[in-house]
Amino acid sequence: MEKSIRIERKALTEFCAKVFECAGIDWEDALLSSTVLVEADARGIPSHGVARMIRYIRGIETGVIIPNAKETILRETPTSLAVDANAGMGFPVSRRTMETVIEKAENCGMAWGVVRNSNHFGIAGYYAMMALPHDMIGICMTNTAALGVPTFGRTVMCGTNPIAFAAPAGKERPFVLDMATTTVPRGKLEVYDRLNKPLPDGWAVDATGHPASDARQVLDDMMNRRGGGLLPLGGFGELFSGHKGYGLSMMVDIMCGMLSNGKTSPDVYDFPEAGGIVHHSFGAFKLSAFLEPAKFKSDMDELIRKLKETPRAEGCERVFVAGEKEFEAEDFNNLHGIPVDQKCHDNLDKLAEKYSIQRVAVL
Amino acid sequence: MEKSIRIERKALTEFCAKVFECAGIDWEDALLSSTVLVEADARGIPSHGVARMIRYIRGIETGVIIPNAKETILRETPTSLAVDANAGMGFPVSRRTMETVIEKAENCGMAWGVVRNSNHFGIAGYYAMMALPHDMIGICMTNTAALGVPTFGRTVMCGTNPIAFAAPAGKERPFVLDMATTTVPRGKLEVYDRLNKPLPDGWAVDATGHPASDARQVLDDMMNRRGGGLLPLGGFGELFSGHKGYGLSMMVDIMCGMLSNGKTSPDVYDFPEAGGIVHHSFGAFKLSAFLEPAKFKSDMDELIRKLKETPRAEGCERVFVAGEKEFEAEDFNNLHGIPVDQKCHDNLDKLAEKYSIQRVAVL
Repeated sequence: MEKSIRIERKALTEFCAKVFECAGIDWEDALLSSTVLVEADARGIPSHGVARMIRYIRGIETGVIIPNAKETILRETPTSLAVDANAGMGFPVSRRTMETVIEKAENCGMAWGVVRNSNHFGIAGYYAMMALPHDMIGICMTNTAALGVPTFGRTVMCGTNPIAFAAPAGKERPFVLDMATTTVPRGKLEVYDRLNKPLPDGWAVDATGHPASDARQVLDDMMNRRGGGLLPLGGFGELFSGHKGYGLSMMVDIMCGMLSNGKTSPDVYDFPEAGGIVHHSFGAFKLSAFLEPAKFKSDMDELIRKLKETPRAEGCERVFVAGEKEFEAEDFNNLHGIPVDQKCHDNLDKLAEKYSIQRVAVL
Repeated sequence: MEKSIRIERKALTEFCAKVFECAGIDWEDALLSSTVLVEADARGIPSHGVARMIRYIRGIETGVIIPNAKETILRETPTSLAVDANAGMGFPVSRRTMETVIEKAENCGMAWGVVRNSNHFGIAGYYAMMALPHDMIGICMTNTAALGVPTFGRTVMCGTNPIAFAAPAGKERPFVLDMATTTVPRGKLEVYDRLNKPLPDGWAVDATGHPASDARQVLDDMMNRRGGGLLPLGGFGELFSGHKGYGLSMMVDIMCGMLSNGKTSPDVYDFPEAGGIVHHSFGAFKLSAFLEPAKFKSDMDELIRKLKETPRAEGCERVFVAGEKEFEAEDFNNLHGIPVDQKCHDNLDKLAEKYSIQRVAVL
């Protein structure tokens, strides 16, 4: 892998916020959006980080994202909230909805919110983790454009539809699961295409519905809607339980597209390089509605330690707990700077030029 | 496969209830327990059906299950409930908890309940589906004894920890996902052992943590806690995202063992042939808290039809929707009788003899 360029976290966040502001987003929402993007890079998930700035700016320019669209509340109860984002940026509406969900859970023990007509909101884990300081379990899901085929199908119907689940611990790091419900994301196919490597059976199918090995072909066919697509978690057919990943993906779609009175993945279209209208779901469970939070957190510590200390398979170095790799990446990157690759850095420079603002300084 | 013996549904339910009553369970709880067991057989899930009668009776005899133990409420709010089952039968406490959760969701929009110190409760889908007639989404999870290894591990730490999720439709059947978070259940290894077939890579690991092909060896090693076990959904290592199945399994454990102030899978032991103390989680979301239920249900119909009509992979006959196979099995079995295999039938006869009650009539 090429050497990463590193940028100081605060400088990168402020630069990206400035770019959003120049594109017409109010400063507060601009800063919030860049904060979520940089958090992805910090946590070692560059696919959802500032490399997407170009895409969001294009989204604003093409009208897919409406800057400063004010969300409207469609329905509300003491425990629930249904919001229409009115095609605004995904980050601010998501953050505000999760804040309201946490407030409602504080009062009622638990709460759930759905958002329709939103845009890409970055990493789902960000919003789930918002619950942690409140001694709550946080959940976040989103639907996406259809990129996955249902079990025994050959055209895309399912989103990569991620689920994020965060639970607080005491002295250990929190448990943070943040996973797409396809076996791999589309980006993994792009990596194999660049390396000219055949795809492992179980990642994708071709236009006939057979397991695909040619990454380039799958990507072309998907782009042109000729058939083929990613396989759900569990892979091809039922032998490795691909139908479970397919079911989880539909579950996420029901909790997002369906419950928000919006659209489900088969009807969510990704505009090339600009994003598309998606739907989210946010939940919070207050620990004290069930037990003493201190007991929960010390039990979590014990479970996490047990998992870390479990005997390792021959030839394997570590057993991880969900979120652990990301927290370690974040510690490292906070210290040494947020890594961005050359292409991403070039794009940030182009954005600086476009809006006549100062380039972001490299460490 | 050998020809199944078929028994009329009502007769089978009443026979099993009678057996439970003879074993010391009050009639109402006995009937409720047998109803859930027969439902599993009816839906084509015999691993969780009346074949387990012997196991429950042994559970009662060995003191693992305490007949007619009355559950106690540990904590309660308008939206939440934490129950101690006090080692009673799993079915009645689960049904009563889900009933309370539905009642609370009717009042508050959503609700969640947890149960600790319970016993095996049959199919998780049964309780999730209880929400459907109330125009609610239902969720149910349970932890189990540890049978699965974490990613990169070689000893069991994770339960098969199923997730069930049920969402109502209008004219179509409801969407009912009911899935273990391991790639396959232990029973699948037993089938391969009987057939002397090598296990596919991705189902289980041996005592060293390498993918296992010898089903007998894995079962023996698991039984004697020498290492090895089932792989999480996604299989071995991270290539097919086994870490996601591992994460889902821990999520279920946090929502069950942890949130109920009970034990998580690493500390849940299965007493041979008698079961073990497990922990459950139940949730309900009232559709009308988010949108018009009629709109949700007609949208569900449309989504389900789209999935059914999606182009099929070459050589594949049907694309299914979660729960569809089970509803079709139930229709058939309601008409033709509930199938039980010879061994299960022999065991039912032995139970009739044991308690000097009339054998159940075969169709």
